[in-house]
Amino acid sequence: MKIVFVGAGNLATRLSLEMYRVGMSIKQVYSQTAESARTLAGKLGCPWTISPEAIISDADLYVFSLKDAVLADVIASIKPNEGLWVHTAGSMPMQIFEEHAKRYGVLYPLQTFSKNRPVNFNIIPFFLEANTQADANILKKIACALSEKVSFLSSDKRRSLHLAAVFACNFTNHIYTLAGKILEEEHIPVDVLLPLIDETAAKIHTMKPAEAQTGPAIRYDENVINKHLAMLTDPDMKAVYQLISRSIHKEALNE
Amino acid sequence: MKIVFVGAGNLATRLSLEMYRVGMSIKQVYSQTAESARTLAGKLGCPWTISPEAIISDADLYVFSLKDAVLADVIASIKPNEGLWVHTAGSMPMQIFEEHAKRYGVLYPLQTFSKNRPVNFNIIPFFLEANTQADANILKKIACALSEKVSFLSSDKRRSLHLAAVFACNFTNHIYTLAGKILEEEHIPVDVLLPLIDETAAKIHTMKPAEAQTGPAIRYDENVINKHLAMLTDPDMKAVYQLISRSIHKEALNE
Repeated sequence: MKIVFVGAGNLATRLSLEMYRVGMSIKQVYSQTAESARTLAGKLGCPWTISPEAIISDADLYVFSLKDAVLADVIASIKPNEGLWVHTAGSMPMQIFEEHAKRYGVLYPLQTFSKNRPVNFNIIPFFLEANTQADANILKKIACALSEKVSFLSSDKRRSLHLAAVFACNFTNHIYTLAGKILEEEHIPVDVLLPLIDETAAKIHTMKPAEAQTGPAIRYDENVINKHLAMLTDPDMKAVYQLISRSIHKEALNE
Repeated sequence: MKIVFVGAGNLATRLSLEMYRVGMSIKQVYSQTAESARTLAGKLGCPWTISPEAIISDADLYVFSLKDAVLADVIASIKPNEGLWVHTAGSMPMQIFEEHAKRYGVLYPLQTFSKNRPVNFNIIPFFLEANTQADANILKKIACALSEKVSFLSSDKRRSLHLAAVFACNFTNHIYTLAGKILEEEHIPVDVLLPLIDETAAKIHTMKPAEAQTGPAIRYDENVINKHLAMLTDPDMKAVYQLISRSIHKEALNE
């Protein structure tokens, strides 16, 4: 099976390297950014291009892994062929391929990827979609070679899953950034928070997060809440503190 | 060394049980709530009381582990004695004891505790404070019997640490709750998020969170952001999405 990667960002990098590692054959990398294309192709030992017209037409699988804003344009700029075209985007419907490819689908790994950080693909949930049963079977075979957690999910539900992932990962990570800023200002080493952060994540493997909630907002300890608000000088951080504390308290009252 | 626990909540429960486990002698538990006092005392095999006047006066260490709002009142309601009085609160100054005890300090473990969830104390950072060097040494001995990460920190800096912990733990956990709600509405099993949540926490052991940031807000993918906002019907969740996305974007521009 010949594979082309259309995109060379975080997700494209880790997914293509994993496919390569398990023995799949990546034949070409396309990216709008020459440096990204060259770097990834170098790791995969394959040619690269920055011209959509130069994308080879005889591959079996085309993996589109691009920012949503450019995905439609890049799809439209590639000549139709007999290959199976899939994207890896959480919030894009499968039907984006409808007018440009005969065979299409979605291969969505639910994980946060950074170019230089290897991850264990075996435990990553993959969510698939395809426009024919035959291609659903092909995609399933590919995904099962990468992970033990493969299932099918509609575009609509995948969009909700992506929204939940933005909260669980992107927003959580930004909260880590804000916590780190508070410590940096006081010259306290940021890594003192790591055991707390790890335990917060570990807890919800065995408890619902609503049951795991601790701290001043769930106790409605106004004493602490007001002190904290007085300490926050950055208006955005103050707004985050107020909004999330209120939301924690509201959630507790609803239970 | 005889120890009295004043408080029987999440932190008091886990800390007293760990002290008991490593061989320290808990002589009494006080709580305003009879059931909490009885339950914890039962686990520790010691007497309990709900009357501050009934607290024994010949203990060596009194650990006050109470909601901030009631801490001052409970301290004032106990007859002064020769013991070392410490509290475990992030945002309370050590000086809260000044007019009520001769020997006092702080024993603050930076972790999230739930009554029924054991945690590994060995890796929990403990932050100490005491009003005399002699008691600083005693507290250090006690903390070092529980953890390998013991240091001294002023009340002011501890307050900032607590604020950072509220972000890193309490707010993060609530974000997990919100993510779970999105999935529950779509009947998608919430545990599909666990590998993502674990990786998000694991990443920042080796990368700064600002470098680990991924997702639509850091890419400023308005396409996705607007779709997500349109999907959120709960006004608080929509406000959280907008505020944190803006904050992620602002942070990225500052770098």
